[in-house]
Amino acid sequence: MTDKLKPLRDQIDAIDAQILSLLNQRAKVAQEVGHVKAETNAPVFRPEREAQVLRSVAERNPGPIGDTEAQTIFREIMSACRALEKRVTVAYLGPSGTFSEQAVYQQFGHAVEGMPCASIDEVFRATEAGTAEFGVVPVENSSEGAINRTLDLLLQTPLIISGEVAIAVHHSLMSKTGTMGGVTAICAHSQALAQCQVWLNEHYPHVERRAVASNAEAARLASLDPSVAAIASEIAGTQYNLGIVNSHIQDDPHNRTRFVIVGQLQPGPSGSDRTSLVLAVPNKAGAVYQLLAPLAKHGVSMTRFESRPARVGTWEYYFYVDIEGHVQNQAVTQALAELKGNAAFFKVLGSYPTSLN
Amino acid sequence: MTDKLKPLRDQIDAIDAQILSLLNQRAKVAQEVGHVKAETNAPVFRPEREAQVLRSVAERNPGPIGDTEAQTIFREIMSACRALEKRVTVAYLGPSGTFSEQAVYQQFGHAVEGMPCASIDEVFRATEAGTAEFGVVPVENSSEGAINRTLDLLLQTPLIISGEVAIAVHHSLMSKTGTMGGVTAICAHSQALAQCQVWLNEHYPHVERRAVASNAEAARLASLDPSVAAIASEIAGTQYNLGIVNSHIQDDPHNRTRFVIVGQLQPGPSGSDRTSLVLAVPNKAGAVYQLLAPLAKHGVSMTRFESRPARVGTWEYYFYVDIEGHVQNQAVTQALAELKGNAAFFKVLGSYPTSLN
Repeated sequence: MTDKLKPLRDQIDAIDAQILSLLNQRAKVAQEVGHVKAETNAPVFRPEREAQVLRSVAERNPGPIGDTEAQTIFREIMSACRALEKRVTVAYLGPSGTFSEQAVYQQFGHAVEGMPCASIDEVFRATEAGTAEFGVVPVENSSEGAINRTLDLLLQTPLIISGEVAIAVHHSLMSKTGTMGGVTAICAHSQALAQCQVWLNEHYPHVERRAVASNAEAARLASLDPSVAAIASEIAGTQYNLGIVNSHIQDDPHNRTRFVIVGQLQPGPSGSDRTSLVLAVPNKAGAVYQLLAPLAKHGVSMTRFESRPARVGTWEYYFYVDIEGHVQNQAVTQALAELKGNAAFFKVLGSYPTSLN
Repeated sequence: MTDKLKPLRDQIDAIDAQILSLLNQRAKVAQEVGHVKAETNAPVFRPEREAQVLRSVAERNPGPIGDTEAQTIFREIMSACRALEKRVTVAYLGPSGTFSEQAVYQQFGHAVEGMPCASIDEVFRATEAGTAEFGVVPVENSSEGAINRTLDLLLQTPLIISGEVAIAVHHSLMSKTGTMGGVTAICAHSQALAQCQVWLNEHYPHVERRAVASNAEAARLASLDPSVAAIASEIAGTQYNLGIVNSHIQDDPHNRTRFVIVGQLQPGPSGSDRTSLVLAVPNKAGAVYQLLAPLAKHGVSMTRFESRPARVGTWEYYFYVDIEGHVQNQAVTQALAELKGNAAFFKVLGSYPTSLN
């Protein structure tokens, strides 16, 4: 076998030498870009440019290497080149070693300075104060809906959303003993129960399912009562010392938590962008319907609409709306101008490249 | 600025196109390697070969790109090529989203199937049963010493250590309130107190320091008593709902947890390897000294020596010994043959490339 492998490995070594040489050529050109940017104080990290490079990698990739794998490699290449200009400092909801840190790497590659913060508030504070150039915070969990504290802070912050990242999250069935012996009820947030119903019907059709406020609350209940099992993330299970009965039980393997990147930077259009808004209207019949009419009129798609009672600010309800397109796209500009006229409260949270996954 | 940037970005795009083309050429040759290996049932993942490639990247790297950054990129390149032959399944101590998962990526790149397990025992079981081809388990923590359960299981398992990974771990000062108001004692494992003493002398010279069994125990105590602050990892703080007073307080920023990779595979020599052994001798004066004499005689360096009372097996004490070199190196072969003659219990846990960090 060695005789056959040797020439192939020599070929690989020769290719690696060429790749290494090209990487350094690229880094030198990136340094020139840095000098040009420094003359005008332009930002080192341009999310729209990086998103374009990554999309182009997938489009032009002839294979056999996978598109996702090629993008992972190029994300690290851009991260390494960027670090030659300046290591970007990124605040995130700690502790380190968690999904939030993975979200940082998924957006910025590994050549960054991560800054773990104790709370979502602290991520915003550190980024607003400029201690960190960007902050990464969870904004939506496909099993438990919106992360309220992030939404509240987005309402008031001067920071701009410059990107989004989705991270796969798995549900596990857990109990105090790590078995289903003596368990008479399975607790979870109603969305999580729904997301695992095929699996539950197959494995535990006769065990009562009980909806509770959150999966973390389910884990807490299971830690107090051996007749209760919880569906939650394994991180929650670890916090409450639960044993795992089964891992990865969600019917959809693509369950995700969505994070947003906040900072001082407003990215330019990348060709495939999303814009996040917060709106409010006086509480009267038909008001919301009228509010949104300009979007339909200008052919702007809405990808998310979420109303929530205000905890801060003047209005009874705030509407968090995501639309397709960038504030600099003509249709979006026009729709938003009209929409602003209809709204009692209007704030653009940011326009940013749509995430790759 | 756009006028100046455009030609530079065109250059980068042209370089990226060449890199992408070379990546796919490399992937095709790697597929041929896969076919040759398949003829003889040879393993897809060769840690010694990957270690050689990464070392060579750092040696031949002309810059300006950083050596570590170049290695990160090539680790992902190898991971992507390997995934074309077969996605390696790797069991690790869950939950996902923790340092153990980061250790998996640091050894195998991102193109793997991670399999989070609820306990160290389960990682060994899954790997012994062949459900996972490799397992990743913590073996040593620079603040709290050996991970006992891993050492016990290594004694009995038929699995072989085929690699090691070190992950940076930070200490934080935490309390129930997240402040030092009313705190009269700082608890931690004695090693952690020692590792933070410069910082503690500067910031809290007059607060009592109290050594406890582990940093996790310190976190538990702090969760029960507002007059106690703990030094521990932020993960432990999260488990016990502590607030962070200060992050990253260890005097040595390079505090690390060491993980080993276990599997059926015995890697060949990579040129810079380590061999792990377990030994036992009857408990009599001078026995340990005599036991180790063959290492000195053959010029083999010992990098770690740890004795621990046996919880399993026949002997009173077991000695966990790491030496420089591979079992196939002549000096090591000879030293081990003599050492085996002296020992009442002798087991080679594996020879593997030394970690890059």
